[in-house]
Amino acid sequence: MKAIVNIYLKEGVLDPQGKAVHHALDSLGFDSVKDVRVGKQIVLDLDAKNKEEIEKEVKQMSETLLANTVIEDYDIEIVE
Amino acid sequence: MKAIVNIYLKEGVLDPQGKAVHHALDSLGFDSVKDVRVGKQIVLDLDAKNKEEIEKEVKQMSETLLANTVIEDYDIEIVE
Repeated sequence: MKAIVNIYLKEGVLDPQGKAVHHALDSLGFDSVKDVRVGKQIVLDLDAKNKEEIEKEVKQMSETLLANTVIEDYDIEIVE
Repeated sequence: MKAIVNIYLKEGVLDPQGKAVHHALDSLGFDSVKDVRVGKQIVLDLDAKNKEEIEKEVKQMSETLLANTVIEDYDIEIVE
């Protein structure tokens, strides 16, 4: 079973990496871009269990290690 | 309109960051994890146009700047 954790900076938190990408896209002529935010996507391959159990465990992983919940939000998606 | 670009290492390409996260999860007692891959998620806020046009433009951005297509794959999702 696979779990996908998307981690992104909270609204209002400055994103210098996103700013840099935005600037680079601008100078390449992509001028329709209004804003860029760069986040992380972590794909976990897990031993098969029931979905609820996995969701609970991945939530715990996110809170303790994967995300910095002071400045980051995350969402979890379970596939297969 | 928003476009989400998920960028991840191709199969077979070593992922040291994923390995480090896997190791950290292991030492925290999460032993059901078999593999971890760490990718990027870039969220673009774009001027409203038709969906096909945006998809084409974001594909071009991904090929020229966002992804390193030698070692990375990507997928694009258009929302709103």
